[in-house]
Amino acid sequence: MPGTIKKLAVLTSGGDSPGMNAAIRSVVRSCAYHGVECFGVYRGYEGLIEGDFECLDARSVKGIINKGGTMLKSARSQGFRTKEGRQQAYQNLLDAKIDGLVVIGGDGSFTGALIFNQEFDFPVMGIPGTIDNDIFGTTHTLGFDTALNTVVDAIDKIRDTASSHNRLFFVEVMGRDVGHIALNAGIAGGAEEILIPEEDLGLDRLVESLNKSRKSGKSSSIVIVAEGDKIGKNIFQLKDYVDENMEGYDVRVSVLGHMQRGGSPSCFDRVLASRMGVKAVEALLNGETNYMVGLLNSKMELTPLEQAIKGKTKINLELLRVSDIMST
Amino acid sequence: MPGTIKKLAVLTSGGDSPGMNAAIRSVVRSCAYHGVECFGVYRGYEGLIEGDFECLDARSVKGIINKGGTMLKSARSQGFRTKEGRQQAYQNLLDAKIDGLVVIGGDGSFTGALIFNQEFDFPVMGIPGTIDNDIFGTTHTLGFDTALNTVVDAIDKIRDTASSHNRLFFVEVMGRDVGHIALNAGIAGGAEEILIPEEDLGLDRLVESLNKSRKSGKSSSIVIVAEGDKIGKNIFQLKDYVDENMEGYDVRVSVLGHMQRGGSPSCFDRVLASRMGVKAVEALLNGETNYMVGLLNSKMELTPLEQAIKGKTKINLELLRVSDIMST
Amino acid sequence: MPGTIKKLAVLTSGGDSPGMNAAIRSVVRSCAYHGVECFGVYRGYEGLIEGDFECLDARSVKGIINKGGTMLKSARSQGFRTKEGRQQAYQNLLDAKIDGLVVIGGDGSFTGALIFNQEFDFPVMGIPGTIDNDIFGTTHTLGFDTALNTVVDAIDKIRDTASSHNRLFFVEVMGRDVGHIALNAGIAGGAEEILIPEEDLGLDRLVESLNKSRKSGKSSSIVIVAEGDKIGKNIFQLKDYVDENMEGYDVRVSVLGHMQRGGSPSCFDRVLASRMGVKAVEALLNGETNYMVGLLNSKMELTPLEQAIKGKTKINLELLRVSDIMST
Amino acid sequence: MPGTIKKLAVLTSGGDSPGMNAAIRSVVRSCAYHGVECFGVYRGYEGLIEGDFECLDARSVKGIINKGGTMLKSARSQGFRTKEGRQQAYQNLLDAKIDGLVVIGGDGSFTGALIFNQEFDFPVMGIPGTIDNDIFGTTHTLGFDTALNTVVDAIDKIRDTASSHNRLFFVEVMGRDVGHIALNAGIAGGAEEILIPEEDLGLDRLVESLNKSRKSGKSSSIVIVAEGDKIGKNIFQLKDYVDENMEGYDVRVSVLGHMQRGGSPSCFDRVLASRMGVKAVEALLNGETNYMVGLLNSKMELTPLEQAIKGKTKINLELLRVSDIMST
Repeated sequence: MPGTIKKLAVLTSGGDSPGMNAAIRSVVRSCAYHGVECFGVYRGYEGLIEGDFECLDARSVKGIINKGGTMLKSARSQGFRTKEGRQQAYQNLLDAKIDGLVVIGGDGSFTGALIFNQEFDFPVMGIPGTIDNDIFGTTHTLGFDTALNTVVDAIDKIRDTASSHNRLFFVEVMGRDVGHIALNAGIAGGAEEILIPEEDLGLDRLVESLNKSRKSGKSSSIVIVAEGDKIGKNIFQLKDYVDENMEGYDVRVSVLGHMQRGGSPSCFDRVLASRMGVKAVEALLNGETNYMVGLLNSKMELTPLEQAIKGKTKINLELLRVSDIMST
Repeated sequence: MPGTIKKLAVLTSGGDSPGMNAAIRSVVRSCAYHGVECFGVYRGYEGLIEGDFECLDARSVKGIINKGGTMLKSARSQGFRTKEGRQQAYQNLLDAKIDGLVVIGGDGSFTGALIFNQEFDFPVMGIPGTIDNDIFGTTHTLGFDTALNTVVDAIDKIRDTASSHNRLFFVEVMGRDVGHIALNAGIAGGAEEILIPEEDLGLDRLVESLNKSRKSGKSSSIVIVAEGDKIGKNIFQLKDYVDENMEGYDVRVSVLGHMQRGGSPSCFDRVLASRMGVKAVEALLNGETNYMVGLLNSKMELTPLEQAIKGKTKINLELLRVSDIMST
Repeated sequence: MPGTIKKLAVLTSGGDSPGMNAAIRSVVRSCAYHGVECFGVYRGYEGLIEGDFECLDARSVKGIINKGGTMLKSARSQGFRTKEGRQQAYQNLLDAKIDGLVVIGGDGSFTGALIFNQEFDFPVMGIPGTIDNDIFGTTHTLGFDTALNTVVDAIDKIRDTASSHNRLFFVEVMGRDVGHIALNAGIAGGAEEILIPEEDLGLDRLVESLNKSRKSGKSSSIVIVAEGDKIGKNIFQLKDYVDENMEGYDVRVSVLGHMQRGGSPSCFDRVLASRMGVKAVEALLNGETNYMVGLLNSKMELTPLEQAIKGKTKINLELLRVSDIMST
Repeated sequence: MPGTIKKLAVLTSGGDSPGMNAAIRSVVRSCAYHGVECFGVYRGYEGLIEGDFECLDARSVKGIINKGGTMLKSARSQGFRTKEGRQQAYQNLLDAKIDGLVVIGGDGSFTGALIFNQEFDFPVMGIPGTIDNDIFGTTHTLGFDTALNTVVDAIDKIRDTASSHNRLFFVEVMGRDVGHIALNAGIAGGAEEILIPEEDLGLDRLVESLNKSRKSGKSSSIVIVAEGDKIGKNIFQLKDYVDENMEGYDVRVSVLGHMQRGGSPSCFDRVLASRMGVKAVEALLNGETNYMVGLLNSKMELTPLEQAIKGKTKINLELLRVSDIMST
């Protein structure tokens, strides 16, 4: 029933992503704007179970919009996977008279929220925060755009040294199940080839592609490899394969790693976080529950959490084609 | 008639924007991919009139995807506004057997292209390159995203010194007729107030807003002002007004200026440029003419040049509201 | 007498500069390391007069090494220019049993510290924090290196658009009395000419230099102008002069402004700040007073505050020559 | 004999570093300034042997001061290690009437230059280009400052995610034999511990240090590890050791890799490169040979190549102490 919510809580859960702080700020200020009290929960669901939360006012979130990470900390909670843990969390919320929860995180975090709602009929709303862009119901997850810029900046640097030495670099980027980072950053970084989980290029075609690239006059090459690429070899095995099967290459490997998760969020992610926070709070105040807010066709839209979790984002086939044409 | 085009030309015109080089690269490589010869024209329509163009192959555009500015240079051409100028341009294209033209620029450049087509029935295709995001038919113009990040980075720096000194800063950003940069960068920069051409806030409400902001405990403030804001005073007059009408403020002004047009393009702009270049070339090869390629609902779409020129982009009212809530 | 100091205070005063937070952190942690209590004073000497300071432990300065601005805020204090103000400040320090003061700031701040010491025999130590690099006794002031990178980054962006349009840009950088920023950033930004307060180039030679530059085949030019350049005209008058006296130039002006003071400090400034903080605390603990710590020949050295204030830093004539040769 | 040199050649050799392009530009423009012809040699000594060089004028090096890598490419030459190779290189220089050579590179490249001089009495001058800062005779090698900023930027990002999750990160940075990058970037990045080749901390003290850090209330930690650290374990073994011997840590590893070599050079490196290029050319024109130019006490100085190669740079012990105090 709309209008009955008086106190909200917000938490960040799962892997952190740039923009989470901006989303927290937005949730807190939207609450202040609507005269609703807002509690920040520390370390995700862990803090819910331990009662580790505190009241945040509009000034508490000053100066965080441009900070990476999450001021509320994040964690993966074993306790919340148990009925007892969730019961304790519910009791803590009841005791504090909190009657709604905003969860900023990925699909694992949303699953927790959904179960929690089903068990205790507690209003929950999700904000998709992950750099992987693997959540159904939004064209962009929070942190995706920033991570892309971080990756592209690293590729630009690697290309400086690659082209000075006529080298071949394999660069591994995040994305265990989805190739969104690899595909976009690969195009933007001018990669000769991009290996993603969604498409099995095959070693033969990789070799063929590299040979073609060299024949066309390219003296250095960069191949972007998503963590979970389909060829099924890790990046060091790829290097070994090329070392053994192709002549004249000086092959190097670079694994970009966790720096992809940090950094000051881009303008895009800050605006997206601000919009999502407003939408999440107002949806709860309007009596909605079990939804995720997302960006669809440039608008804020609600997608049922269940769909957001189960739905699969697909790789944009047009981008695969663009990548192919660009490496002409 | 599809399939008849054998040689394309590409030029950049009007104010430059980050991503223009990436778009040139994409046009050139798309031509190479489709076995079409591609000519780069220097200094926009001026180069067309002077016959200042040369053949570019896939390797000619190596290493430019991450460079700001435009390797083809840009200019505003007086000659092309005359019938004689356009006649000469047409003759040069005929002589070189070029049978299609891709124009990367803003609405002024598109108007030139449209007239040129109407006079000589010459196939033209537009790519929207401008940081202002003021072109109808695309949610993002080329360079907009990069400019936003540049502006936000500058605001972050200004906030460092503003908050160290408890100062009020008026920061002017580009946007003579549209407030897209101001609105997005203002939200992302945590601005207390944003003045845009589309909305006349009025001096009284500005003063009121600043007073409210101070009462709420903020010790420093940043007001973003689009070049063409509606209050009708320039930014130095705004400062004088506050100096005279409000007490206790240490007011400073910063005009960000032309640095907003430069810099290495963001991942978003590089991918967008790559997609637009492919689409523009393939549309021409498919016999389309007088269109602009654009990003609509995450897809590449064609909009008639006439609409692109006349249509008005509207400010996103949701963003105005978000800005208002965020400055709580 | 060494060893007698038990409680130190630290403040930042005057214009802020990147690295001030890193210096505060270093002072606080050096105190913790030596078992000395440390107080942070807010808003410079104002906070001293108002008794606005609090105890900081090693954890209080967590996460600030990479932040621009100063967590202690800065201000210019009228009160401290009066005997009564200083008397009150002294009393507050006495009451809190604080027996030493580290002042992070420029020569104005050091003058205050020196007078304070002379009146009350209170131990003081200076850390040179200003982007202008105009303090005698150190080759680098805190924030200078960061400001240079900020300025050079802006010039790079401006050059993108300058060279796309064959334009002449006058770019104003900070430095009212000294040209260190202009000279270094001008060389690094590839400026065609650099106007500094220390050298009167003269308008004639500027015009001559620009003409030479154009004849040598340069199609765009950037002239860096220090705020206090000797020609005695402001940057807009320079533009007007060129507009009137030279043909064929499209001249633009960019005033970089306060963004030069902000931003995350460079590695150089963070290391410098860390070293200076350690040195300042240990010098006070060793019974030294009235000194400024500085970087001389890669080492931390002490210079009497009086010399630091009165001494003049000179422009490096070698750099002027290098600039001249580079614009060949 | 001074004044007899009419044609110089310049090459880059060994691992590339940011600032090499700025140094090439400076050498070329210094030659132009002094009326000396200048040849750019491609791929280091390889190009010398193959006669792969061409004349560069002042305009040839336009727009490269801010580019990473080296436009002349770099390589490690097997041929130049043979008498025949060097003989061929000498003959090529003779044929082209080139009578002096500037070598931009590290100690391996200088050794080649020295042998070449000894065999053919050919004037050579070295410019120290390497990110490792391991060359005797200069406080800063070209690229060191830029690499530090790159590393610190990456650490800042990693810390965002480390502190969001209360994790321990081992971050590997370049430096096989020297710990300059690790030590400076570690201090600037706020690392809890720094492992360098020059000092064997020992596993026990590492564990002790981490325990102390945790007891002091730090919830996340970053340990910087130079490639060639003395503990003698690689970074993955370090992780395993901590996993096995310490409880409650969530340990992650990040190897920064080749991105450390690329990127647009910092202001410091661009100015340094410009000064070094001028000095190298003028020293050769003054009849000097077998020297390396370097920065000593803020001045350009010459050091005999032999000393530059054999001399050892020492770690700054003061920095080790500062690092220790800062991790209080």
